[in-house]
Amino acid sequence: MTFQIPRGTQDILPNVVGKWQYIEKTAREICRLYQYQEIRTPIFEHTELFLRSVGQTTDVVQKEMYTFEDRKGRSLTLRPEGTAAAVRSFVENKMYAHPIQPVKLYYIGPMFRYERPQSGRFRQFVQFGVEALGSSDPAIDAEVIALAWDFYRSLGLKKLKLVINSLGDQESRTAHREALIQHFENRIGEFCTDCQTRFRQNPLRILDCKKDREHELMQSAPSIIDYLNEESKAYFQKVLSYLDDLGIEYEVDSNLVRGLDYYNHTAFEIMSNAEGFGAITTLCGGGRYNGLVEEMGGPNTPGIGFALSIERLLAALESEGVELPTSKGIDCYIVTLGEKAKDRSVAILKDLRDHGVSAEKDYENKKMKAQLKAADRLQAKYVIIIGENELEKGAANVKNMESGIQEEVQLNQLSTFIKERL
Amino acid sequence: MTFQIPRGTQDILPNVVGKWQYIEKTAREICRLYQYQEIRTPIFEHTELFLRSVGQTTDVVQKEMYTFEDRKGRSLTLRPEGTAAAVRSFVENKMYAHPIQPVKLYYIGPMFRYERPQSGRFRQFVQFGVEALGSSDPAIDAEVIALAWDFYRSLGLKKLKLVINSLGDQESRTAHREALIQHFENRIGEFCTDCQTRFRQNPLRILDCKKDREHELMQSAPSIIDYLNEESKAYFQKVLSYLDDLGIEYEVDSNLVRGLDYYNHTAFEIMSNAEGFGAITTLCGGGRYNGLVEEMGGPNTPGIGFALSIERLLAALESEGVELPTSKGIDCYIVTLGEKAKDRSVAILKDLRDHGVSAEKDYENKKMKAQLKAADRLQAKYVIIIGENELEKGAANVKNMESGIQEEVQLNQLSTFIKERL
Repeated sequence: MTFQIPRGTQDILPNVVGKWQYIEKTAREICRLYQYQEIRTPIFEHTELFLRSVGQTTDVVQKEMYTFEDRKGRSLTLRPEGTAAAVRSFVENKMYAHPIQPVKLYYIGPMFRYERPQSGRFRQFVQFGVEALGSSDPAIDAEVIALAWDFYRSLGLKKLKLVINSLGDQESRTAHREALIQHFENRIGEFCTDCQTRFRQNPLRILDCKKDREHELMQSAPSIIDYLNEESKAYFQKVLSYLDDLGIEYEVDSNLVRGLDYYNHTAFEIMSNAEGFGAITTLCGGGRYNGLVEEMGGPNTPGIGFALSIERLLAALESEGVELPTSKGIDCYIVTLGEKAKDRSVAILKDLRDHGVSAEKDYENKKMKAQLKAADRLQAKYVIIIGENELEKGAANVKNMESGIQEEVQLNQLSTFIKERL
Repeated sequence: MTFQIPRGTQDILPNVVGKWQYIEKTAREICRLYQYQEIRTPIFEHTELFLRSVGQTTDVVQKEMYTFEDRKGRSLTLRPEGTAAAVRSFVENKMYAHPIQPVKLYYIGPMFRYERPQSGRFRQFVQFGVEALGSSDPAIDAEVIALAWDFYRSLGLKKLKLVINSLGDQESRTAHREALIQHFENRIGEFCTDCQTRFRQNPLRILDCKKDREHELMQSAPSIIDYLNEESKAYFQKVLSYLDDLGIEYEVDSNLVRGLDYYNHTAFEIMSNAEGFGAITTLCGGGRYNGLVEEMGGPNTPGIGFALSIERLLAALESEGVELPTSKGIDCYIVTLGEKAKDRSVAILKDLRDHGVSAEKDYENKKMKAQLKAADRLQAKYVIIIGENELEKGAANVKNMESGIQEEVQLNQLSTFIKERL
């Protein structure tokens, strides 16, 4: 009997995991520079959390959640995104009372959506996201965008496009919503059934429809930009002017509507325009959600964040031909001849590792030639050769694999000898 | 409406996450030195995988798994441990054909068991584990133990005890099993119902019973050590002699029986004997499982590994009073006076971060005094003060918070000035 990995998931194997480690290290370092602190929330949450925060009308909630009951009949759901739990934790742990606001959080971890698996889209995928909770300073909007931008740039991506929009405040959104209803109501029958549901629940999301995007009413639909009130307009202008200060280019796209219900004011996406990257070009999406904390039982608190998928980032790196500088090769390999040398090598190996030298030996009773081949495969910088003669002298031969130079070194000096030369 | 975290789980909040990051960094570094490579398997697997590998008779499988059906009716289970998936991946990805054996893997990630929550025991917990697949060299047994030992020691734990046993090979186990059946069969009625089930399914596990540990037959039960055949005895002696070579002290305990079904030969636990650590003293458990890979559909392949819980490690660190050296404080805080300086600070902040300086500013329109207080709270090493006068001169005041020395620095020199002094 053999077992297979569940459909839509993947193992990240040793030959590629170095890229993941490098990407995560980069994310953590950028968050340190920007002073975002890591938060780790559970893999599952009470299902109601996502119904309330992500929104009942979204595809995520309606079709894509992994929901199950625990042994006490409580409904739990594998998290489909990170914002809901971050906000839940912010409220539950009263972070709104922290003396410095906003509270700036980041997370990196697996998320789960039951979607049809396809190239670059998995049922379990890893998201890196940030949330800044407690400030409605437009400088924070610019900071969050800059953080995502810097992250991609520092990994070597060049073909990036930042698209930005404002969804305005509640007043602006209500005015726009009424205009949308008037615009679509006489001809909504010409749209798909999803759009007809959206029309009743959240007409803004009609603009997001992939099926009806060619319908003539889509082009002529009232743009949110024209319905922003003065305050919303000024806010948006300030965000854009900060982006100018930071030297980050952007394109304003009034059709940019994020798929989740809780956004307002700034909405943005970072896209890849690398050739041959394929149909899904959005790498990162984010925006402001000033109502969400209150909706989740906390005090009225503004918030903004983004989330991005590491899988999609890897695809973008590949399509731009970027090689991440993952480290290769080990410091030292021990080759032994004879039983005594083999036995002795166990302690020598440990001593090397105790001195911070990454080291390996043979465990298959290979002949000397095969051991040297293994050293080669592992790209060892140094090879230590211990035979019976050397052992009697309490010494070993150490070969620098780059220069080819070989020296005799006392066994009790080995670790220091190699450590000094790395 | 407010939301609570699911019972038995925890948020790892910014004030403690630094410890987790430090521990994981240490684990990764030790694995690099020992040449174990990371593998990341999905959070859930097909349920049968755990039934087959962990074993039908174990508490984990019988009572503690989070099992659910996906939308196609497939039974999935949140992983209760890491070995099953590592072995599944080893077989599925044909790692047994890799030119260098053993294949040495490690994992760090959340595991899930539906247990009664209690101090230090969570339903979601994080395990660090390693698996060495493809070698039956006793040096690998010693290496795996040494890796776990080094990990704890390098984090500062001192009150550790290594307990080791051999469960022998199949022949030894069968002989021991028969002796156990003879020993218990006439009086098994005096034991708990769990033990009566164990008697039929796997009598070795009676020795593990917590309820009946005082029963007189327990003390006199046949010890596996007396049933080891010559080969198993020699193997065990070799492991112990390598541990002697490595200077790792151990205690042989013939009652040590690991809870999972698939162990043979070497079994070990690392325990804390710190005072006041409480009833659960096992920090790490591991052992050999030479039959498992074949059981899971792969070729006959030996294996050994361990798993340990980070939550329990944190408890041990606390009971020994060990403070991990997590980094504190930011490099630089910008204090601004007036709207112009505030606007200008956004780009300055970005420039500092671009130069690798961790930096922060105020987003709450705080007065100067309150901004300085925030700098203090964040333990800033430098404070940059930008007022209207300074701005006109294109300069800022930079204060070293340790020495108190203040200097005027040109705005375009700020990042280099601070970078050089960190």
